[in-house]
Amino acid sequence: MGARAGIIVTGTEVLTGRVTDRNGPWLAETLRGFGVDVAHVLLVGDRRTDLSSALLFLTGSGVDLVITTGGLGPTADDLTAEVVGDIQGRPARLDPLLEGRIQVIVTNLMSRRGWQVDPEATALGVRKQALVPEGSAVLEPVGTAPGLVVPVGRGRAGPPVLVLPGPPAELQGMWPAALADPAVQRALAGREELRQQTLRLWNTPESELAATLRQIEPALGGLEITTCLQGGELEVVTRYGPAAQPAYDGLVAALQASYRQRLFSVDGLTVDEIVADALRTQNLTIATAESCTGGLLAGRLTDRAGSSKWVQGGLVVYSNQAKRDLAGVPADLLERVGAVSAEVAEALAEGACCRLGADVGVGITGVAGPGGGSPDKPVGLVHLCVVGRSRRIPRTVVLPGSRADVRARSVTLAMHLLRELLADELPIQVGGPARCSEHRTGP
Amino acid sequence: MGARAGIIVTGTEVLTGRVTDRNGPWLAETLRGFGVDVAHVLLVGDRRTDLSSALLFLTGSGVDLVITTGGLGPTADDLTAEVVGDIQGRPARLDPLLEGRIQVIVTNLMSRRGWQVDPEATALGVRKQALVPEGSAVLEPVGTAPGLVVPVGRGRAGPPVLVLPGPPAELQGMWPAALADPAVQRALAGREELRQQTLRLWNTPESELAATLRQIEPALGGLEITTCLQGGELEVVTRYGPAAQPAYDGLVAALQASYRQRLFSVDGLTVDEIVADALRTQNLTIATAESCTGGLLAGRLTDRAGSSKWVQGGLVVYSNQAKRDLAGVPADLLERVGAVSAEVAEALAEGACCRLGADVGVGITGVAGPGGGSPDKPVGLVHLCVVGRSRRIPRTVVLPGSRADVRARSVTLAMHLLRELLADELPIQVGGPARCSEHRTGP
Repeated sequence: MGARAGIIVTGTEVLTGRVTDRNGPWLAETLRGFGVDVAHVLLVGDRRTDLSSALLFLTGSGVDLVITTGGLGPTADDLTAEVVGDIQGRPARLDPLLEGRIQVIVTNLMSRRGWQVDPEATALGVRKQALVPEGSAVLEPVGTAPGLVVPVGRGRAGPPVLVLPGPPAELQGMWPAALADPAVQRALAGREELRQQTLRLWNTPESELAATLRQIEPALGGLEITTCLQGGELEVVTRYGPAAQPAYDGLVAALQASYRQRLFSVDGLTVDEIVADALRTQNLTIATAESCTGGLLAGRLTDRAGSSKWVQGGLVVYSNQAKRDLAGVPADLLERVGAVSAEVAEALAEGACCRLGADVGVGITGVAGPGGGSPDKPVGLVHLCVVGRSRRIPRTVVLPGSRADVRARSVTLAMHLLRELLADELPIQVGGPARCSEHRTGP
Repeated sequence: MGARAGIIVTGTEVLTGRVTDRNGPWLAETLRGFGVDVAHVLLVGDRRTDLSSALLFLTGSGVDLVITTGGLGPTADDLTAEVVGDIQGRPARLDPLLEGRIQVIVTNLMSRRGWQVDPEATALGVRKQALVPEGSAVLEPVGTAPGLVVPVGRGRAGPPVLVLPGPPAELQGMWPAALADPAVQRALAGREELRQQTLRLWNTPESELAATLRQIEPALGGLEITTCLQGGELEVVTRYGPAAQPAYDGLVAALQASYRQRLFSVDGLTVDEIVADALRTQNLTIATAESCTGGLLAGRLTDRAGSSKWVQGGLVVYSNQAKRDLAGVPADLLERVGAVSAEVAEALAEGACCRLGADVGVGITGVAGPGGGSPDKPVGLVHLCVVGRSRRIPRTVVLPGSRADVRARSVTLAMHLLRELLADELPIQVGGPARCSEHRTGP
């Protein structure tokens, strides 16, 4: 096995999830892309003994490098440098030149922000940040805190510990300097070139994929395959060394043969990217009319920079009155079949196109729950329809899960219906959308 | 110290951050609220040796209970039950009755989704899920996977391991049964009664709060206070034993005196809950017209069950044409001041009210970036306006961060403007909204 690393993320607020940790995932992905395998990411609060035992575990776990993030600030609960020094057997020493440099940074920062400087408190904090475990390399601050590379002390065995600051911009800004450090380079010398590819399947149970993989197992040597089901999409991530490229190509061919259209992405593209690219390259505009998803589809379509080129806009038609007045759903249709019906989904898609002058329309209406269900129209029942210039695709599903699940899955399903529609949508024809008159009513 | 727990979250996809782990934070928060302290959350991939060493570390770390999430599926990379059995010294045994129950669940699920069943593959997966470490208690499946409480084997010492499934809805659904298990109850018997309260401040820098807390520090004995800045809101979470209730009451009084209106929640309510309650109790309806936020505000307003009572609907007016045709923004206004302007934000709020017949309207227009900025109208510039029956609140801001940050913060800011507006909105007057004629143009 090649080089391996373990990661420690400190801070009570990430332990309790009030702040979502972005450093662990970033480091894990960056290291993997770099050919270094990550065994563990350990979240630990601001308690000295917990940080200490986490460091003992990871430095003793056989990895080549341990990386810590956070806990380098000026206040008393910022313990990382000190505890790492203890574990590595390297007592702290004040670095007076570093102290001077940090003092300049802090003074500039406070005056730029117009904050009052308490000279005494500031000096104490700066001095704390300039305490460096003996024999460590200092990585210059990107914010105010320096990073450290702390080798194991004389007469002991174990990997070096790379100590990085917690703010993601500071950590990422310091990363090139960290990789250039000789001790870090030695630690990661055993790294292997590793490739990573992502395949995406739609509407495929995990058990079916597992069965397929079992059948072709002898041909999969050298591939590390992980699968993950997310909102109806099955993501297959494969990591392998260069020698296993033929095995990977064989996997792709086998899955293409088994799953055809359901294997909708072999190049890492997400359904969002595929839909956006299709709209852009075919020069089509899109509009939505959403009831139960309440704007989430429009929000997702406009996540991408530049989406104003193809997203015309959307209607959130929560009330029946809005369905009538805004989307032009005929009142008698609403009365006859009810707001949650395939007919109304289609009328919404039509109405979105018509009212917003778009080429492609999406209509969604359903019972997101948890209340409002009936024997006829249970919670989770969602009708969708996408309409283009040449054809339309209606779809009715009953989705499991919470209100949030039903809404999120409906949006993902709509994205896949759009992908299907756009895969063979005809080029734009001359002349306006004739169907606009169909459902047109006041105001 | 009272009862403590350690948490292991399995899955290569959470280790690499492709899926954001929700279970670790949920468990940590739930346990803390319950008086159980969490020392470590360990993310580990789907590799047997890594899971094994993680379990050895946590079961040997002195905690009273170890909890694992994930890795209970039917496929080969789902290892948790087996590895936990190894560590606890409890070999796996097939539970034939459990196998039958899982078989029924899986068959129903596949037929409900209209999936083809491969009987052989399914039977293998079901059998794997019914393999239970000897002497364990089974927690009935909420999805397809059972949970387990695996006590330490005879002749060994260590805490029991509570094995829970990975999908958050399944984990949370199984939690009451897990807490009711006698071995879990014994493990957590040492828990201390702990109160947890959340205060929320709007528009307050963390350093200002830190200064306030320093001033009143002598009065804060027995309170564990953590603060966290999220999207412009400062959340203050305080944990304390019953004896420190007077200290907590003193903290609230001191913050109320210092921060007045900015301390917008002292009872744990979120701004979303406050706005929804205000709309419901004042019997008001709401509508939105969003440009740069593309439907995210409407999506957030409809997150809550029952929101159809007050959310009338919304307009996503990405193009200028949509702003004119749908929201009734006058063409000459758009030409004169541009789409990103305070005037258009106000016209959008008016248009939302008018077109959807709502009592309260919100308009948002801005430059979400990363492109599209200019010296006059930089990336991050957002104009908002909320209008009610008795008054209107306009607001212009320049928000930092990425496209996603700008959009998310704009939505949060809109929620706070609504909160402000609704705090002293007049009761509904008889008669329709007269302002509707102001901006009315063709359909």
